[in-house]
This record gives sequence, structure tokens and C-alpha cells, in this order.
Amino acid sequence: MRIIFITGNKHKMEEAAAILHDHDVERLDIDLPEIQSLDPEEIITQKLAVARERLKTDNDVRDTIIMVEDVSFWIGDTGLPGPLIKFFNQTIGRPGLVTFAHAFGTDKARALCCIGILRPGVDTPEFFTGTIEGTVVPPRGESGFGFDPVFIPDGHTKTYAEMLGDEKNAISHRKRALEALEAFLETG
Amino acid sequence: MRIIFITGNKHKMEEAAAILHDHDVERLDIDLPEIQSLDPEEIITQKLAVARERLKTDNDVRDTIIMVEDVSFWIGDTGLPGPLIKFFNQTIGRPGLVTFAHAFGTDKARALCCIGILRPGVDTPEFFTGTIEGTVVPPRGESGFGFDPVFIPDGHTKTYAEMLGDEKNAISHRKRALEALEAFLETG
Repeated sequence: MRIIFITGNKHKMEEAAAILHDHDVERLDIDLPEIQSLDPEEIITQKLAVARERLKTDNDVRDTIIMVEDVSFWIGDTGLPGPLIKFFNQTIGRPGLVTFAHAFGTDKARALCCIGILRPGVDTPEFFTGTIEGTVVPPRGESGFGFDPVFIPDGHTKTYAEMLGDEKNAISHRKRALEALEAFLETG
Repeated sequence: MRIIFITGNKHKMEEAAAILHDHDVERLDIDLPEIQSLDPEEIITQKLAVARERLKTDNDVRDTIIMVEDVSFWIGDTGLPGPLIKFFNQTIGRPGLVTFAHAFGTDKARALCCIGILRPGVDTPEFFTGTIEGTVVPPRGESGFGFDPVFIPDGHTKTYAEMLGDEKNAISHRKRALEALEAFLETG
């Protein structure tokens, strides 16, 4: 099956192509508006609707799955920042994520990747989620982006940013979501 | 001039009608998507574009100003929560706003109302802003909504929520933005 993965990020594309290796995954870098919400599925649903509308004049798209992902980061039971993590990074930054967690009496966090797809002829999105629990620590490590330097997955001692790319990709929230999608496509 | 104020909130409508008393202000309660951003003008620009598109079949709209407002709340120099205040209210709540401020070493905050209008025949929005500086305190008072119970404007001793409606409206960030708009319309 042909899958159009809408993302500006080449690394995400490579990771998706590696796990969805039985499929023809193409990257499309178009800017889709993101609505304000704490619900990843709501954000993705709206992005997929806009993407389908923009791609509808593409003949090939009738046999194509459209795919979008959203990463959220949940600190303790605060309910924040979730999909708004990018705005926390832009403002209070990584040390601020730690300050935030401690202020609310926690050092726990959950990284979540939600993938939504629209299959040809199917009106409503289908979702695949991967989560990984962990701990928030002061920033360590150079690689990675977003919350990677302040997040240690449970059962590990390195932050995401201290892991080599393969090491992170082998355990990540994104890998788990992609595997859930892959399993669905194999049986579907 | 006829002004269509797009809001779900009747109180905001009454306040606008009172200050813009030389104009014919009508309330239109339609749901406009809000994009993720920390920039009120960016959020409003996109809402106005959608509103103009939806209203374009309305003959009268050709002689009508379309108006949208966005309230943001800025704690210290954190750069947060800004227009994302509603999500802070929904999750960590009002006591959480105080916890957040103290964690980042401040008790200062700024309430900002940004009004955007599209005038007939004008392609780009025009903006009118009202701000009020103040202090964040543990919640006090029953009236008001959003951050009202935790915000004391500078020069006052009551929170917004402890003030009677008229008392708040006489000094509020929203009143200042409406007055800036009124002054513009009078001279324009």
C-alpha cells in the first residue's frame, strides 16, 4: 500500500519507512494548521481532513493512505503540556520542564506518539498510539530534540538525548505507535 | 457602521455594545477553529479569515466589520500561558497558576485583550490591544471566570473576581482594547 506521511521531519520519515518496510512510504512536507487542543486525536483529525481536501485532485491518492503523527509529553498528573509541549520548549525550555514538574510535586512523565491515518474510502481516522513512561531530569545529552534531554525512559539510565539514534528508536514511543500501525496494516 | 462580533459570550457582547454605542453591534455565535500559537494576532488573523469566508454569501456583510477577540494571560517573563490560558485553567486550574508563577520566581502577570477587525474592502486585519499589569494571588472571589480569581490589577486590592461587574469593566484589559477600537472608528 502507498502511504503519504505528512511531516517536515526527515528522521521521522526514515523511522517510519524502516518499520513500515512492506509499504511504499512517501514524505510530503506541507504545512497543516494545528488547532488548539489537549487531545492529540482531535488535532490529528482536523489535520487529516485538511490534508485529504488538499490532496483530492491527486489521482493516485485514491489508493493511498494519508498519515499524520502528533507527539505529546505529559508531566505527572498535571494534564500538561501534552500536545502543547512545543510551546513549553519555546518559552520555559528544558530546564523549565523540570521546574514545572517539581513545582507540581512530580518527576514522572509520559511520552506519547499518536498516529492517525485516513484509508481510501474510509471517512473517519484510525489511530495508533505508543507510550513510554519515564522520569524528568535536568538536561543531559546533545542529540535529539524537544524533551529528549530531560526524559529518561523507565528501565534505562540515559536520557533520550544521551542515546544513540538506533538506541532511542529501538524503544521509543514513536516506534511503538508505528509497530501498532504496522500490525494493523498486516492483518487488515 | 454594522459590526458583527463573533463570540459565544453574551457578557463580552454587552460590554462591547456599551463601549461601541455609536455602532450597530451584533453577536454571532459560530465556532471558529483556533490554531496553536502563542501569538494572539496570528490566532485572530486565521479566525477572521475563516469568518469572512463563511459570511461571504451574506449580502449585508459587504458593509460590515467582522470582529474577533482573544484574551491572553502572561505570567512573569515565562512567556506562558498566553493564549493557552484556557488549557492551564482546564488542567492545573487557578491554584496551579499560582504554583506555576511561584515556581518561576514571580508573582507578576499581565492580562491582555487583543481585538482584530476586518473592515469591508480591507484585506488585512487591524488590531487593538488593551493590557493591564497585576499580581497573581491564591484564588479569591466568586464572580468572573478564567483567571479572574487569581489576578489583582496594579493599584487595586481586590481580585477581578471580587469586583462587581461594573467595577471590573471600568478598568479591564478588554475595556482598554474596546476603547482603542472605538477611538479608531471615530477618527476613521
